[in-house]
Amino acid sequence: MADFSHLDEKGRVQMVDVSDKKTTDRLAIAVGKLSMKPDTLASILDQAMPKGNVLETARIAGIMAAKKTWELIPMCHPLELTHVQVDFFPETETSSIRIEGQARVAGRTGVEMEALTAVSVAALTIYDMCKSADKAMAIEKIHLVRKYGGKSGEFVNEG
Amino acid sequence: MADFSHLDEKGRVQMVDVSDKKTTDRLAIAVGKLSMKPDTLASILDQAMPKGNVLETARIAGIMAAKKTWELIPMCHPLELTHVQVDFFPETETSSIRIEGQARVAGRTGVEMEALTAVSVAALTIYDMCKSADKAMAIEKIHLVRKYGGKSGEFVNEG
Amino acid sequence: MADFSHLDEKGRVQMVDVSDKKTTDRLAIAVGKLSMKPDTLASILDQAMPKGNVLETARIAGIMAAKKTWELIPMCHPLELTHVQVDFFPETETSSIRIEGQARVAGRTGVEMEALTAVSVAALTIYDMCKSADKAMAIEKIHLVRKYGGKSGEFVNEG
Amino acid sequence: MADFSHLDEKGRVQMVDVSDKKTTDRLAIAVGKLSMKPDTLASILDQAMPKGNVLETARIAGIMAAKKTWELIPMCHPLELTHVQVDFFPETETSSIRIEGQARVAGRTGVEMEALTAVSVAALTIYDMCKSADKAMAIEKIHLVRKYGGKSGEFVNEG
Amino acid sequence: MADFSHLDEKGRVQMVDVSDKKTTDRLAIAVGKLSMKPDTLASILDQAMPKGNVLETARIAGIMAAKKTWELIPMCHPLELTHVQVDFFPETETSSIRIEGQARVAGRTGVEMEALTAVSVAALTIYDMCKSADKAMAIEKIHLVRKYGGKSGEFVNEG
Amino acid sequence: MADFSHLDEKGRVQMVDVSDKKTTDRLAIAVGKLSMKPDTLASILDQAMPKGNVLETARIAGIMAAKKTWELIPMCHPLELTHVQVDFFPETETSSIRIEGQARVAGRTGVEMEALTAVSVAALTIYDMCKSADKAMAIEKIHLVRKYGGKSGEFVNEG
Repeated sequence: MADFSHLDEKGRVQMVDVSDKKTTDRLAIAVGKLSMKPDTLASILDQAMPKGNVLETARIAGIMAAKKTWELIPMCHPLELTHVQVDFFPETETSSIRIEGQARVAGRTGVEMEALTAVSVAALTIYDMCKSADKAMAIEKIHLVRKYGGKSGEFVNEG
Repeated sequence: MADFSHLDEKGRVQMVDVSDKKTTDRLAIAVGKLSMKPDTLASILDQAMPKGNVLETARIAGIMAAKKTWELIPMCHPLELTHVQVDFFPETETSSIRIEGQARVAGRTGVEMEALTAVSVAALTIYDMCKSADKAMAIEKIHLVRKYGGKSGEFVNEG
Repeated sequence: MADFSHLDEKGRVQMVDVSDKKTTDRLAIAVGKLSMKPDTLASILDQAMPKGNVLETARIAGIMAAKKTWELIPMCHPLELTHVQVDFFPETETSSIRIEGQARVAGRTGVEMEALTAVSVAALTIYDMCKSADKAMAIEKIHLVRKYGGKSGEFVNEG
Repeated sequence: MADFSHLDEKGRVQMVDVSDKKTTDRLAIAVGKLSMKPDTLASILDQAMPKGNVLETARIAGIMAAKKTWELIPMCHPLELTHVQVDFFPETETSSIRIEGQARVAGRTGVEMEALTAVSVAALTIYDMCKSADKAMAIEKIHLVRKYGGKSGEFVNEG
Repeated sequence: MADFSHLDEKGRVQMVDVSDKKTTDRLAIAVGKLSMKPDTLASILDQAMPKGNVLETARIAGIMAAKKTWELIPMCHPLELTHVQVDFFPETETSSIRIEGQARVAGRTGVEMEALTAVSVAALTIYDMCKSADKAMAIEKIHLVRKYGGKSGEFVNEG
Repeated sequence: MADFSHLDEKGRVQMVDVSDKKTTDRLAIAVGKLSMKPDTLASILDQAMPKGNVLETARIAGIMAAKKTWELIPMCHPLELTHVQVDFFPETETSSIRIEGQARVAGRTGVEMEALTAVSVAALTIYDMCKSADKAMAIEKIHLVRKYGGKSGEFVNEG
């Protein structure tokens, strides 16, 4: 049973204890992209998809999911988010929609996961609203682009 | 107020009525990839991340999220999933982890969104477990690779 | 301690056991009304509310809430809803919006509560989206108008 | 694709950013009424409904729902409620039950929606507990009666 | 990186695939006990606890939690429960309350976890309602006493 | 109808109003035990259970459940937990696993229920992961062992 203590030391899952961190204003911005067929993009922008207004549905889903990040991501802390925003930037040249998600809180821990979750669920919702027409859509390059607040200060991802 | 009826006809959001669809065995497989620094990948595989066993946590999070797809994606139907599976394939040459998610049901509607949600939340969880070491990770190309069951038969995405 | 058995017999809360009921197609339709100032109604219909598209947000919220009825109403059974629909009918003469909610399932128990919950949460959402402009809105007369399926057959509420 | 930017400007759904609002003690009180047949009211008050103690079940459901308001109403903020209360006032002359809901928080935004949600879900629960006996019940006039806290000070709805 | 494949084979978490199991009527009964000071028991039975009707609140909480078992227990399947029941049997000689939980479904997998979850959350709720008076209560011996349905037939735990 | 006011006074369920309590650092520790067959314990420690890594799954489930305590226990307040921890101590002499759960918050109310919920759901998850091999496991003596913070100061349960 030596295995057990080994497991406990090596792989033991843990939540970070943020009790002693300062409450500061924290913000994070994440982006991602959903690539699709040009016809799909045109239908979305014309609100001609049979399931209805794709982007407002995705925006609402992204905002609601950000509020549930702590429920989805096992080691995330519950947070009283003060703001979530989801924006869409259609790019006809690449036949895709860029999705930007932003989360804000006055809290003890950062909101990167909330911003990334907003983008992910907004992308999944667009996929769901359009999948009868285009099953080959792909969610591309979801990543953090900026965060500030907390001890580590500002982070900017140039990538 | 002509705008209103216009809205109602054009952008009106709707759930597909699946009452008259047949209950068949349905399966969907989705994949995605999380790219990271080589050191991050090595730490994950060695279970040396301070937050613990990254991949089992992500697997559990992906499975649990698949069960909540109907709660996250506004127009999805609640489903009694019979199986969800999440697998990880580390690729050292590209310094990434390929994530494969699979969902299955005996139901009236497909489980693409459940498979895609499992992959997305597993990827987000890996991100969360490693973000103190690597904030520049990116979630890449989440897409459906195969589905079967229902009227439309089998779909295979070669892309 | 005679009180206890008394309580148990009189007030004991119980879920109906539907194990032996037949799975039939069941549908329910509920309606309600949100009354407001004429200016509020005009702003909603012009999509001029600062919080955005009020009715699509309320429609999505109503549909999502119907799926959570079993979570909100203690003695409701979880159900695999096959369809939920929320419609809005603005009435300028009464300065109100009539909200109609419909739920459908192939199940062992009716979906009245799902239809009523869809209407209630859609109404609450309209309230939320407009409350900065009009705090005196009122949710009026939410009731069941029709149900069918199950042993009791069709019910029509003329009221 | 001019439609898109139009949509974005006109109907774009947004959550209010409360990051810069002050944390103050906030309270809201909402009321509503459930009208029913006199026999139904008598059975509720005698705890003679077959599903059990109607009012305590509804009280609990209303309190629990208030805590989930942010999950139900898309643009609501998550809040650490410090108190929720639901009270019932039977009115034999009108054969109805008046429901009063109150929510309190030390937060950056008001709790009107929490009070209104408590009343709505309490009413829905009474409906559910009694619907086998009385399908024609109606939820009447749910509205805000009072709020205080925050920049706008006190609001009293005489209506 | 040999560790990884090792992990995958040894500790890989998995949900049982129940797709090919038969839908049968399944039932499970679990029991547990909450021991407390005699005064606490007397106050519960007299409904004299300041937080109110302890047992009805616990009953409702247990029933609601059973419906959420799939959300709490990572590898559980979502199920359309047809019945959940929670009963209390005060035992003055041992100064405790025996809690019995029962769950039922027509499904592909058993409902032991649902019955056990109902008992656990009912016990936790009694604890919560009485903890200001008695912090030393203990939840004792929650276990499965009986199940039937499915391939394994009937199980009876004499223990 | 005298019954009603009687009910209201005696059994009326209520949430404690914590609006005027101080925000202090609060911590609670609970323990419990899961007893099982010696073979079951050996398989858990060897990670040889067919469902995979039992203890990490249970740890994650316990942590996630603690965050949902307010959703499960009707009169609990929502809290921004700053830390949750679940630990396992296998005891081969008694063929059991001792489970320790800890919760922490800077808040207006204690986190006993969060610690107790973490232990309970961790125990249920171990049960679920092992039940195909051992249906006679029992959850034993879940109780609070220590709490501090708030007006009542420190509590230590020697029991």
